[in-house]
Amino acid sequence: MIIGPGDDCALVKQPGGNVLLKADAIVQDVHFTLETEPRLIGRKALARAISDIGAMGGTPRHALVTVVLPPTLSVAFIEAIYEGMNELATEFQVSIVGGETSKGRELVISVALSGDAAGRVVGRSGASAGDVLFVTGQLGGSIHGKHLNFTPRVREAQWLAAHFAPTAMMDVSDGLAKDLPRLARASRLEFVVDEPSLPCSPGCTAAQAWGDGEDYELLFAIDAGHADQLKQAWSQAHPHLALTKIGRLVAAGEGCAPGFASSGWDHFAKP
Amino acid sequence: MIIGPGDDCALVKQPGGNVLLKADAIVQDVHFTLETEPRLIGRKALARAISDIGAMGGTPRHALVTVVLPPTLSVAFIEAIYEGMNELATEFQVSIVGGETSKGRELVISVALSGDAAGRVVGRSGASAGDVLFVTGQLGGSIHGKHLNFTPRVREAQWLAAHFAPTAMMDVSDGLAKDLPRLARASRLEFVVDEPSLPCSPGCTAAQAWGDGEDYELLFAIDAGHADQLKQAWSQAHPHLALTKIGRLVAAGEGCAPGFASSGWDHFAKP
Repeated sequence: MIIGPGDDCALVKQPGGNVLLKADAIVQDVHFTLETEPRLIGRKALARAISDIGAMGGTPRHALVTVVLPPTLSVAFIEAIYEGMNELATEFQVSIVGGETSKGRELVISVALSGDAAGRVVGRSGASAGDVLFVTGQLGGSIHGKHLNFTPRVREAQWLAAHFAPTAMMDVSDGLAKDLPRLARASRLEFVVDEPSLPCSPGCTAAQAWGDGEDYELLFAIDAGHADQLKQAWSQAHPHLALTKIGRLVAAGEGCAPGFASSGWDHFAKP
Repeated sequence: MIIGPGDDCALVKQPGGNVLLKADAIVQDVHFTLETEPRLIGRKALARAISDIGAMGGTPRHALVTVVLPPTLSVAFIEAIYEGMNELATEFQVSIVGGETSKGRELVISVALSGDAAGRVVGRSGASAGDVLFVTGQLGGSIHGKHLNFTPRVREAQWLAAHFAPTAMMDVSDGLAKDLPRLARASRLEFVVDEPSLPCSPGCTAAQAWGDGEDYELLFAIDAGHADQLKQAWSQAHPHLALTKIGRLVAAGEGCAPGFASSGWDHFAKP
Protein backbone atom coordinates (compact mmCIF):
# COMPACT_ATOMS: atom_id res chain seq x y z
CA MET A 1 0.00 0.00 0.00
CA ILE A 2 1.34 3.40 -0.97
CA ILE A 3 -1.57 5.62 0.02
CA GLY A 4 -4.07 4.16 2.46
CA PRO A 5 -7.19 5.10 4.44
CA GLY A 6 -7.74 8.85 4.66
CA ASP A 7 -7.34 9.81 1.01
CA ASP A 8 -10.02 9.69 -1.69
CA CYS A 9 -8.76 6.28 -2.81
CA ALA A 10 -6.17 3.75 -1.86
CA LEU A 11 -3.17 3.46 -4.14
CA VAL A 12 -1.81 -0.07 -4.07
CA LYS A 13 1.06 -1.85 -5.73
CA GLN A 14 -0.05 -4.68 -7.96
CA PRO A 15 2.35 -6.80 -9.93
CA GLY A 16 3.43 -4.61 -12.81
CA GLY A 17 1.90 -1.33 -11.72
CA ASN A 18 0.00 0.78 -9.26
CA VAL A 19 -3.78 0.65 -9.02
CA LEU A 20 -6.25 3.00 -7.38
CA LEU A 21 -9.04 1.34 -5.41
CA LYS A 22 -12.20 2.91 -4.04
CA ALA A 23 -15.29 1.51 -2.36
CA ASP A 24 -18.37 3.52 -1.52
CA ALA A 25 -21.99 2.82 -0.68
CA ILE A 26 -25.20 4.78 -0.94
CA VAL A 27 -28.04 3.98 1.43
CA GLN A 28 -31.79 4.47 1.15
CA ASP A 29 -33.07 7.48 3.13
CA VAL A 30 -29.49 8.74 3.58
CA HIS A 31 -28.27 9.36 0.04
CA PHE A 32 -31.58 8.94 -1.80
CA THR A 33 -35.15 7.84 -1.14
CA LEU A 34 -37.43 5.38 -2.88
CA GLU A 35 -39.10 8.46 -4.42
CA THR A 36 -35.87 9.21 -6.29
CA GLU A 37 -35.83 8.33 -9.98
CA PRO A 38 -34.20 4.88 -9.92
CA ARG A 39 -31.98 5.63 -12.92
CA LEU A 40 -30.45 8.46 -10.90
CA ILE A 41 -29.95 6.22 -7.86
CA GLY A 42 -27.82 3.89 -9.95
CA ARG A 43 -26.03 6.81 -11.56
CA LYS A 44 -25.16 8.36 -8.21
CA ALA A 45 -23.82 5.11 -6.77
CA LEU A 46 -21.24 4.81 -9.53
CA ALA A 47 -20.63 8.56 -9.98
CA ARG A 48 -19.41 8.97 -6.39
CA ALA A 49 -16.74 6.32 -6.84
CA ILE A 50 -15.72 7.69 -10.25
CA SER A 51 -15.42 11.13 -8.67
CA ASP A 52 -13.00 9.77 -6.06
CA ILE A 53 -10.80 7.99 -8.59
CA GLY A 54 -10.87 11.15 -10.70
CA ALA A 55 -9.95 13.39 -7.78
CA MET A 56 -6.58 11.65 -7.56
CA GLY A 57 -5.92 12.13 -11.27
CA GLY A 58 -6.71 8.49 -12.03
CA THR A 59 -8.69 6.84 -14.81
CA PRO A 60 -11.64 4.72 -13.59
CA ARG A 61 -11.55 1.22 -15.04
CA HIS A 62 -13.40 -1.72 -13.44
CA ALA A 63 -16.41 -1.67 -11.14
CA LEU A 64 -17.97 -4.29 -8.89
CA VAL A 65 -21.51 -3.56 -7.78
CA THR A 66 -23.16 -5.06 -4.71
CA VAL A 67 -26.85 -4.34 -4.21
CA VAL A 68 -28.95 -5.03 -1.13
CA LEU A 69 -32.55 -5.18 -2.35
CA PRO A 70 -35.74 -4.97 -0.33
CA PRO A 71 -38.05 -7.69 -1.71
CA THR A 72 -40.76 -5.06 -2.23
CA LEU A 73 -38.92 -3.30 -5.08
CA SER A 74 -40.27 -3.94 -8.54
CA VAL A 75 -38.16 -5.52 -11.23
CA ALA A 76 -38.62 -2.36 -13.33
CA PHE A 77 -37.24 -0.22 -10.49
CA ILE A 78 -34.21 -2.48 -10.12
CA GLU A 79 -33.59 -2.58 -13.84
CA ALA A 80 -33.72 1.21 -13.99
CA ILE A 81 -31.06 1.41 -11.27
CA TYR A 82 -28.74 -0.72 -13.37
CA GLU A 83 -29.59 1.27 -16.51
CA GLY A 84 -28.53 4.50 -14.85
CA MET A 85 -25.35 2.87 -13.69
CA ASN A 86 -24.61 1.40 -17.10
CA GLU A 87 -25.17 4.71 -18.88
CA LEU A 88 -22.60 6.44 -16.70
CA ALA A 89 -20.24 3.47 -17.01
CA THR A 90 -20.39 3.78 -20.78
CA GLU A 91 -19.80 7.53 -20.61
CA PHE A 92 -16.65 7.06 -18.49
CA GLN A 93 -15.53 3.82 -20.17
CA VAL A 94 -15.88 1.88 -16.93
CA SER A 95 -16.44 -1.89 -17.19
CA ILE A 96 -18.87 -3.34 -14.66
CA VAL A 97 -17.16 -6.68 -14.18
CA GLY A 98 -19.21 -8.31 -11.45
CA GLY A 99 -21.20 -8.01 -8.29
CA GLU A 100 -23.74 -9.62 -6.07
CA THR A 101 -27.25 -9.06 -4.85
CA SER A 102 -28.64 -9.87 -1.44
CA LYS A 103 -32.01 -9.18 0.08
CA GLY A 104 -32.35 -6.68 2.91
CA ARG A 105 -34.80 -4.24 4.43
CA GLU A 106 -33.40 -1.12 2.79
CA LEU A 107 -31.78 -0.48 -0.58
CA VAL A 108 -27.99 -0.22 -0.41
CA ILE A 109 -25.73 0.02 -3.45
CA SER A 110 -22.07 -0.54 -2.86
CA VAL A 111 -19.58 0.11 -5.63
CA ALA A 112 -15.93 -0.88 -5.71
CA LEU A 113 -13.94 0.73 -8.46
CA SER A 114 -10.39 0.29 -9.65
CA GLY A 115 -8.51 2.95 -11.52
CA ASP A 116 -5.31 3.30 -13.46
CA ALA A 117 -2.68 5.41 -11.83
CA ALA A 118 -0.48 5.64 -14.87
CA GLY A 119 -0.11 9.42 -14.81
CA ARG A 120 0.69 11.60 -11.84
CA VAL A 121 -1.37 10.62 -8.76
CA VAL A 122 -2.43 13.55 -6.62
CA GLY A 123 -3.07 12.85 -2.93
CA ARG A 124 -4.08 15.25 -0.20
CA SER A 125 -0.83 15.58 1.67
CA GLY A 126 1.66 17.29 -0.64
CA ALA A 127 0.70 20.94 -0.15
CA SER A 128 2.92 23.68 1.32
CA ALA A 129 2.08 26.87 3.21
CA GLY A 130 1.34 29.59 0.69
CA ASP A 131 -0.25 27.27 -1.88
CA VAL A 132 -3.41 28.71 -3.39
CA LEU A 133 -6.78 26.94 -3.08
CA PHE A 134 -9.17 26.53 -6.00
CA VAL A 135 -12.55 24.88 -6.49
CA THR A 136 -14.30 23.98 -9.71
CA GLY A 137 -17.95 24.75 -10.44
CA GLN A 138 -20.45 26.14 -7.95
CA LEU A 139 -21.07 24.97 -4.42
CA GLY A 140 -24.21 24.59 -2.29
CA GLY A 141 -27.78 23.50 -2.87
CA SER A 142 -26.82 20.13 -4.31
CA ILE A 143 -29.83 18.56 -2.63
CA HIS A 144 -32.03 20.22 -5.29
CA GLY A 145 -30.71 17.81 -7.91
CA LYS A 146 -26.99 17.97 -8.46
CA HIS A 147 -26.28 15.30 -5.84
CA LEU A 148 -27.99 12.85 -8.22
CA ASN A 149 -26.82 13.98 -11.63
CA PHE A 150 -23.41 15.59 -11.14
CA THR A 151 -20.63 14.91 -13.62
CA PRO A 152 -17.48 13.54 -11.99
CA ARG A 153 -14.56 15.85 -12.79
CA VAL A 154 -12.29 13.13 -14.14
CA ARG A 155 -11.24 14.94 -17.30
CA GLU A 156 -10.53 18.19 -15.47
CA ALA A 157 -8.55 16.44 -12.73
CA GLN A 158 -6.39 14.63 -15.26
CA TRP A 159 -5.80 17.88 -17.12
CA LEU A 160 -4.77 19.57 -13.85
CA ALA A 161 -2.49 16.69 -12.89
CA ALA A 162 -0.82 16.72 -16.29
CA HIS A 163 -0.37 20.48 -16.66
CA PHE A 164 -0.32 22.12 -13.22
CA ALA A 165 0.78 19.46 -10.74
CA PRO A 166 -1.63 20.27 -7.90
CA THR A 167 0.11 19.76 -4.57
CA ALA A 168 -3.10 18.35 -3.04
CA MET A 169 -6.51 17.52 -4.50
CA MET A 170 -9.80 15.91 -3.46
CA ASP A 171 -13.47 15.99 -4.39
CA VAL A 172 -15.88 17.99 -2.22
CA SER A 173 -18.32 15.32 -1.09
CA ASP A 174 -19.06 16.26 2.53
CA GLY A 175 -18.89 20.02 1.97
CA LEU A 176 -16.00 22.47 2.04
CA ALA A 177 -16.54 22.94 5.77
CA LYS A 178 -15.52 19.32 6.37
CA ASP A 179 -13.36 18.59 3.38
CA LEU A 180 -11.10 21.62 3.34
CA PRO A 181 -9.92 21.01 6.93
CA ARG A 182 -9.19 17.40 5.90
CA LEU A 183 -7.09 18.52 2.97
CA ALA A 184 -5.23 21.04 5.13
CA ARG A 185 -4.67 18.53 7.94
CA ALA A 186 -3.31 15.92 5.53
CA SER A 187 -0.59 18.45 4.63
CA ARG A 188 -0.19 19.54 8.32
CA LEU A 189 -1.43 23.00 7.43
CA GLU A 190 -4.34 25.33 8.13
CA PHE A 191 -6.28 27.44 5.68
CA VAL A 192 -7.61 30.94 5.10
CA VAL A 193 -10.79 31.21 3.04
CA ASP A 194 -11.99 34.42 1.47
CA GLU A 195 -15.70 34.06 2.22
CA PRO A 196 -17.03 36.47 -0.43
CA SER A 197 -15.11 34.59 -3.11
CA LEU A 198 -16.95 31.28 -2.57
CA PRO A 199 -18.67 30.32 -5.84
CA CYS A 200 -22.28 29.87 -4.78
CA SER A 201 -24.82 27.89 -6.78
CA PRO A 202 -27.74 30.05 -7.99
CA GLY A 203 -29.94 30.96 -5.01
CA CYS A 204 -27.41 29.76 -2.45
CA THR A 205 -25.68 31.72 0.28
CA ALA A 206 -21.98 31.49 1.10
CA ALA A 207 -22.94 29.51 4.19
CA GLN A 208 -24.65 26.93 1.98
CA ALA A 209 -21.67 26.81 -0.37
CA TRP A 210 -19.51 26.23 2.67
CA GLY A 211 -21.61 23.64 4.44
CA ASP A 212 -24.12 21.86 2.22
CA GLY A 213 -21.91 19.17 0.73
CA GLU A 214 -22.41 16.63 -2.07
CA ASP A 215 -20.98 19.09 -4.59
CA TYR A 216 -18.52 16.59 -6.11
CA GLU A 217 -16.42 19.45 -7.40
CA LEU A 218 -12.63 19.46 -7.25
CA LEU A 219 -10.83 21.20 -4.41
CA PHE A 220 -7.11 21.56 -4.95
CA ALA A 221 -4.00 23.50 -4.03
CA ILE A 222 -1.25 24.69 -6.34
CA ASP A 223 1.92 26.71 -6.00
CA ALA A 224 0.93 30.39 -5.81
CA GLY A 225 3.33 31.23 -8.62
CA HIS A 226 1.25 29.21 -11.08
CA ALA A 227 -2.18 30.55 -10.14
CA ASP A 228 -2.50 33.22 -12.83
CA GLN A 229 -1.25 30.92 -15.55
CA LEU A 230 -3.74 28.28 -14.40
CA LYS A 231 -6.66 30.69 -14.56
CA GLN A 232 -5.79 31.60 -18.15
CA ALA A 233 -5.20 28.06 -19.33
CA TRP A 234 -8.33 26.80 -17.56
CA SER A 235 -10.69 29.21 -19.29
CA GLN A 236 -9.44 27.98 -22.64
CA ALA A 237 -9.42 24.27 -21.78
CA HIS A 238 -12.66 24.17 -19.76
CA PRO A 239 -14.70 27.19 -20.86
CA HIS A 240 -17.97 25.82 -19.44
CA LEU A 241 -16.78 25.10 -15.90
CA ALA A 242 -15.97 27.84 -13.42
CA LEU A 243 -12.67 27.78 -11.56
CA THR A 244 -12.47 29.95 -8.45
CA LYS A 245 -9.63 30.87 -6.15
CA ILE A 246 -11.12 30.65 -2.67
CA GLY A 247 -8.13 31.14 -0.39
CA ARG A 248 -4.78 29.65 0.56
CA LEU A 249 -3.08 27.19 2.82
CA VAL A 250 -1.08 28.60 5.72
CA ALA A 251 1.18 27.30 8.45
CA ALA A 252 -0.32 25.75 11.57
CA GLY A 253 -1.61 28.42 13.94
CA GLU A 254 -2.14 31.00 11.20
CA GLY A 255 -5.41 29.76 9.72
CA CYS A 256 -8.97 30.82 10.07
CA ALA A 257 -12.23 29.54 8.67
CA PRO A 258 -15.23 31.56 7.47
CA GLY A 259 -17.29 33.09 10.23
CA PHE A 260 -20.34 30.90 9.78
CA ALA A 261 -20.41 27.74 11.80
CA SER A 262 -22.07 25.32 9.42
CA SER A 263 -20.16 22.13 9.56
CA GLY A 264 -20.87 20.21 6.39
CA TRP A 265 -22.69 16.98 6.06
CA ASP A 266 -22.14 14.44 8.82
CA HIS A 267 -23.94 11.10 8.59
CA PHE A 268 -23.67 10.60 12.31
CA ALA A 269 -24.46 14.13 13.45
CA LYS A 270 -27.22 14.50 16.01
CA PRO A 271 -30.09 16.57 14.63
CA MET B 1 -12.09 -7.89 -18.79
CA ILE B 2 -11.07 -11.50 -19.30
CA ILE B 3 -13.55 -13.26 -17.02
CA GLY B 4 -16.65 -11.32 -16.05
CA PRO B 5 -19.92 -11.70 -14.17
CA GLY B 6 -20.84 -15.32 -13.48
CA ASP B 7 -17.58 -16.60 -12.05
CA ASP B 8 -16.40 -16.36 -8.44
CA CYS B 9 -14.41 -13.24 -9.31
CA ALA B 10 -13.75 -11.00 -12.25
CA LEU B 11 -10.34 -11.26 -13.85
CA VAL B 12 -9.32 -7.93 -15.35
CA LYS B 13 -6.33 -6.65 -17.24
CA GLN B 14 -4.51 -3.86 -15.44
CA PRO B 15 -1.39 -2.22 -16.80
CA GLY B 16 1.35 -4.76 -16.19
CA GLY B 17 -0.72 -7.74 -15.12
CA ASN B 18 -4.05 -9.37 -14.45
CA VAL B 19 -5.95 -8.75 -11.25
CA LEU B 20 -8.83 -10.65 -9.66
CA LEU B 21 -11.62 -8.51 -8.25
CA LYS B 22 -14.47 -9.57 -5.98
CA ALA B 23 -17.18 -7.66 -4.15
CA ASP B 24 -19.56 -9.19 -1.67
CA ALA B 25 -21.86 -7.98 1.08
CA ILE B 26 -23.35 -9.54 4.19
CA VAL B 27 -26.62 -8.21 5.51
CA GLN B 28 -28.16 -8.25 8.97
CA ASP B 29 -30.86 -10.91 9.42
CA VAL B 30 -29.78 -12.57 6.17
CA HIS B 31 -26.18 -13.61 6.80
CA PHE B 32 -26.00 -12.92 10.55
CA THR B 33 -28.08 -11.32 13.29
CA LEU B 34 -27.26 -8.72 15.91
CA GLU B 35 -27.07 -11.67 18.35
CA THR B 36 -24.04 -12.95 16.42
CA GLU B 37 -20.66 -12.37 18.05
CA PRO B 38 -19.53 -9.17 16.30
CA ARG B 39 -15.97 -10.40 15.80
CA LEU B 40 -17.41 -13.25 13.73
CA ILE B 41 -19.60 -10.87 11.70
CA GLY B 42 -16.49 -9.00 10.63
CA ARG B 43 -14.62 -12.23 10.03
CA LYS B 44 -17.37 -13.62 7.82
CA ALA B 45 -17.62 -10.47 5.70
CA LEU B 46 -13.97 -10.71 4.71
CA ALA B 47 -13.76 -14.52 4.66
CA ARG B 48 -16.43 -14.82 1.95
CA ALA B 49 -14.49 -12.57 -0.41
CA ILE B 50 -11.19 -14.31 0.40
CA SER B 51 -12.89 -17.62 -0.34
CA ASP B 52 -13.92 -16.39 -3.79
CA ILE B 53 -10.46 -15.10 -4.69
CA GLY B 54 -9.03 -18.37 -3.40
CA ALA B 55 -11.47 -20.49 -5.39
CA MET B 56 -9.90 -19.17 -8.60
CA GLY B 57 -6.41 -20.01 -7.42
CA GLY B 58 -5.62 -16.37 -6.64
CA THR B 59 -3.88 -14.70 -3.75
CA PRO B 60 -6.03 -12.15 -1.89
CA ARG B 61 -4.26 -8.81 -1.57
CA HIS B 62 -6.12 -5.55 -0.91
CA ALA B 63 -9.53 -5.05 0.68
CA LEU B 64 -11.89 -2.09 0.80
CA VAL B 65 -14.59 -2.28 3.45
CA THR B 66 -17.85 -0.35 3.37
CA VAL B 67 -20.06 -0.56 6.45
CA VAL B 68 -23.65 0.62 6.81
CA LEU B 69 -24.18 1.12 10.54
CA PRO B 70 -27.46 1.49 12.43
CA PRO B 71 -26.94 4.35 14.90
CA THR B 72 -28.05 2.05 17.73
CA LEU B 73 -24.93 -0.13 17.57
CA SER B 74 -22.41 0.40 20.35
CA VAL B 75 -18.86 1.50 19.60
CA ALA B 76 -17.61 -1.72 21.22
CA PHE B 77 -19.75 -3.80 18.86
CA ILE B 78 -18.44 -1.91 15.84
CA GLU B 79 -14.84 -2.17 17.02
CA ALA B 80 -15.24 -5.91 17.49
CA ILE B 81 -16.48 -6.24 13.89
CA TYR B 82 -13.29 -4.58 12.66
CA GLU B 83 -11.16 -6.67 15.05
CA GLY B 84 -12.55 -9.89 13.58
CA MET B 85 -11.92 -8.59 10.10
CA ASN B 86 -8.39 -7.47 10.94
CA GLU B 87 -7.50 -10.82 12.51
CA LEU B 88 -8.48 -12.69 9.37
CA ALA B 89 -6.76 -10.08 7.19
CA THR B 90 -3.53 -10.65 9.10
CA GLU B 91 -3.89 -14.43 8.80
CA PHE B 92 -4.27 -14.19 5.02
CA GLN B 93 -1.87 -11.25 4.54
CA VAL B 94 -4.65 -9.06 3.20
CA SER B 95 -4.19 -5.27 3.52
CA ILE B 96 -7.34 -3.35 4.35
CA VAL B 97 -6.56 -0.20 2.38
CA GLY B 98 -9.69 1.85 2.80
CA GLY B 99 -13.41 2.04 3.07
CA GLU B 100 -16.32 4.12 4.16
CA THR B 101 -19.07 4.09 6.73
CA SER B 102 -22.60 5.32 6.32
CA LYS B 103 -25.55 5.21 8.62
CA GLY B 104 -28.52 3.00 7.80
CA ARG B 105 -31.29 1.00 9.42
CA GLU B 106 -29.60 -2.40 9.21
CA LEU B 107 -26.00 -3.47 9.40
CA VAL B 108 -24.44 -4.20 6.00
CA ILE B 109 -20.78 -4.96 5.45
CA SER B 110 -19.56 -4.82 1.89
CA VAL B 111 -16.07 -5.99 1.05
CA ALA B 112 -14.22 -5.47 -2.21
CA LEU B 113 -11.09 -7.52 -2.55
CA SER B 114 -8.36 -7.62 -5.17
CA GLY B 115 -6.19 -10.64 -5.74
CA ASP B 116 -3.07 -11.53 -7.62
CA ALA B 117 -3.58 -13.82 -10.53
CA ALA B 118 0.09 -14.53 -11.04
CA GLY B 119 -0.30 -18.33 -11.10
CA ARG B 120 -2.85 -20.34 -13.01
CA VAL B 121 -6.36 -18.88 -12.72
CA VAL B 122 -9.10 -21.50 -12.54
CA GLY B 123 -12.54 -20.45 -13.75
CA ARG B 124 -15.72 -22.50 -13.94
CA SER B 125 -15.92 -23.09 -17.63
CA GLY B 126 -12.97 -25.26 -18.61
CA ALA B 127 -14.29 -28.73 -17.74
CA SER B 128 -14.92 -31.61 -20.16
CA ALA B 129 -17.37 -34.49 -20.05
CA GLY B 130 -15.81 -37.28 -18.01
CA ASP B 131 -13.98 -34.99 -15.59
CA VAL B 132 -14.27 -36.13 -11.99
CA LEU B 133 -15.85 -33.94 -9.30
CA PHE B 134 -14.30 -33.45 -5.87
CA VAL B 135 -15.20 -31.43 -2.80
CA THR B 136 -13.04 -30.56 0.17
CA GLY B 137 -14.15 -30.93 3.80
CA GLN B 138 -17.66 -31.79 4.95
CA LEU B 139 -20.90 -30.28 3.78
CA GLY B 140 -24.14 -29.36 5.52
CA GLY B 141 -25.14 -27.88 8.85
CA SER B 142 -23.02 -24.78 8.40
CA ILE B 143 -25.67 -22.71 10.15
CA HIS B 144 -24.54 -24.27 13.46
CA GLY B 145 -21.34 -22.25 13.34
CA LYS B 146 -19.16 -22.91 10.32
CA HIS B 147 -20.83 -20.17 8.25
CA LEU B 148 -19.22 -17.72 10.67
CA ASN B 149 -15.79 -19.21 11.33
CA PHE B 150 -14.87 -21.21 8.22
CA THR B 151 -11.37 -21.06 6.85
CA PRO B 152 -11.19 -19.99 3.20
CA ARG B 153 -9.44 -22.71 1.20
CA VAL B 154 -6.88 -20.39 -0.39
CA ARG B 155 -3.85 -22.55 0.31
CA GLU B 156 -5.54 -25.72 -0.93
CA ALA B 157 -6.83 -24.05 -4.09
CA GLN B 158 -3.39 -22.71 -4.95
CA TRP B 159 -1.89 -26.15 -4.36
CA LEU B 160 -4.52 -27.69 -6.64
CA ALA B 161 -3.98 -25.06 -9.33
CA ALA B 162 -0.23 -25.54 -9.20
CA HIS B 163 -0.16 -29.36 -9.15
CA PHE B 164 -3.38 -30.71 -10.67
CA ALA B 165 -4.73 -28.05 -13.00
CA PRO B 166 -8.43 -28.34 -12.12
CA THR B 167 -10.52 -27.80 -15.23
CA ALA B 168 -13.16 -25.90 -13.22
CA MET B 169 -13.32 -24.76 -9.61
CA MET B 170 -15.52 -22.67 -7.32
CA ASP B 171 -16.36 -22.37 -3.66
CA VAL B 172 -19.62 -23.88 -2.39
CA SER B 173 -21.38 -20.84 -0.96
CA ASP B 174 -25.02 -21.41 -1.92
CA GLY B 175 -24.93 -25.20 -1.51
CA LEU B 176 -23.99 -27.98 -3.92
CA ALA B 177 -27.58 -28.09 -5.13
CA LYS B 178 -27.20 -24.59 -6.58
CA ASP B 179 -23.48 -24.36 -7.15
CA LEU B 180 -22.81 -27.67 -8.90
CA PRO B 181 -25.36 -26.93 -11.66
CA ARG B 182 -23.69 -23.53 -12.09
CA LEU B 183 -20.27 -25.11 -12.51
CA ALA B 184 -21.65 -27.70 -14.95
CA ARG B 185 -23.57 -25.07 -16.94
CA ALA B 186 -20.49 -22.83 -17.21
CA SER B 187 -18.78 -25.73 -19.01
CA ARG B 188 -21.99 -26.59 -20.98
CA LEU B 189 -22.19 -29.93 -19.20
CA GLU B 190 -24.42 -31.81 -16.78
CA PHE B 191 -23.41 -33.85 -13.78
CA VAL B 192 -23.92 -37.18 -12.06
CA VAL B 193 -23.59 -37.19 -8.28
CA ASP B 194 -23.15 -40.34 -6.23
CA GLU B 195 -25.45 -39.46 -3.35
CA PRO B 196 -24.01 -41.86 -0.75
CA SER B 197 -20.55 -40.46 -1.35
CA LEU B 198 -21.45 -36.92 -0.24
CA PRO B 199 -19.22 -36.00 2.73
CA CYS B 200 -21.74 -35.00 5.39
CA SER B 201 -20.88 -32.88 8.38
CA PRO B 202 -21.41 -34.75 11.69
CA GLY B 203 -25.14 -35.12 12.33
CA CYS B 204 -26.12 -34.08 8.81
CA THR B 205 -27.98 -36.04 6.17
CA ALA B 206 -27.00 -36.22 2.52
CA ALA B 207 -29.92 -33.90 1.77
CA GLN B 208 -28.43 -31.31 4.11
CA ALA B 209 -24.98 -31.74 2.57
CA TRP B 210 -26.63 -31.21 -0.81
CA GLY B 211 -28.81 -28.26 0.03
CA ASP B 212 -27.78 -26.34 3.14
CA GLY B 213 -25.12 -24.07 1.66
CA GLU B 214 -22.57 -21.69 3.19
CA ASP B 215 -19.99 -24.49 3.29
CA TYR B 216 -17.23 -22.43 1.64
CA GLU B 217 -15.49 -25.64 0.61
CA LEU B 218 -13.89 -26.12 -2.80
CA LEU B 219 -15.80 -27.86 -5.57
CA PHE B 220 -13.68 -28.72 -8.58
CA ALA B 221 -13.32 -30.95 -11.59
CA ILE B 222 -10.18 -32.64 -12.84
CA ASP B 223 -9.30 -35.00 -15.63
CA ALA B 224 -10.37 -38.51 -14.57
CA GLY B 225 -6.90 -39.85 -15.32
CA HIS B 226 -5.42 -37.76 -12.49
CA ALA B 227 -7.97 -38.60 -9.81
CA ASP B 228 -6.07 -41.40 -8.05
CA GLN B 229 -2.82 -39.48 -8.07
CA LEU B 230 -4.64 -36.46 -6.62
CA LYS B 231 -6.12 -38.50 -3.77
CA GLN B 232 -2.68 -39.76 -2.79
CA ALA B 233 -0.92 -36.42 -3.06
CA TRP B 234 -3.75 -34.67 -1.22
CA SER B 235 -3.61 -36.87 1.86
CA GLN B 236 0.08 -36.06 2.22
CA ALA B 237 -0.22 -32.34 1.49
CA HIS B 238 -3.45 -31.68 3.39
CA PRO B 239 -3.77 -34.49 5.96
CA HIS B 240 -6.34 -32.62 8.07
CA LEU B 241 -8.83 -31.81 5.33
CA ALA B 242 -10.99 -34.43 3.67
CA LEU B 243 -11.13 -34.67 -0.11
CA THR B 244 -14.06 -36.61 -1.55
CA LYS B 245 -14.91 -37.69 -5.05
CA ILE B 246 -18.63 -37.03 -5.38
CA GLY B 247 -19.36 -37.70 -9.03
CA ARG B 248 -18.49 -36.59 -12.53
CA LEU B 249 -19.39 -34.20 -15.30
CA VAL B 250 -21.22 -35.62 -18.30
CA ALA B 251 -22.43 -34.41 -21.66
CA ALA B 252 -25.67 -32.47 -21.90
CA GLY B 253 -28.67 -34.78 -21.66
CA GLU B 254 -26.82 -37.48 -19.70
CA GLY B 255 -26.86 -35.93 -16.25
CA CYS B 256 -28.95 -36.52 -13.18
CA ALA B 257 -29.02 -34.96 -9.75
CA PRO B 258 -29.59 -36.68 -6.41
CA GLY B 259 -33.18 -37.67 -5.79
CA PHE B 260 -33.88 -35.18 -3.04
CA ALA B 261 -35.27 -31.89 -4.17
CA SER B 262 -33.64 -29.48 -1.76
CA SER B 263 -32.50 -26.53 -3.74
CA GLY B 264 -29.77 -24.78 -1.78
CA TRP B 265 -29.94 -21.36 -0.29
CA ASP B 266 -31.77 -18.71 -2.26
CA HIS B 267 -31.98 -15.20 -0.85
CA PHE B 268 -35.04 -14.46 -2.88
CA ALA B 269 -36.86 -17.77 -2.45
CA LYS B 270 -40.42 -17.59 -1.22
CA PRO B 271 -40.76 -19.32 2.15
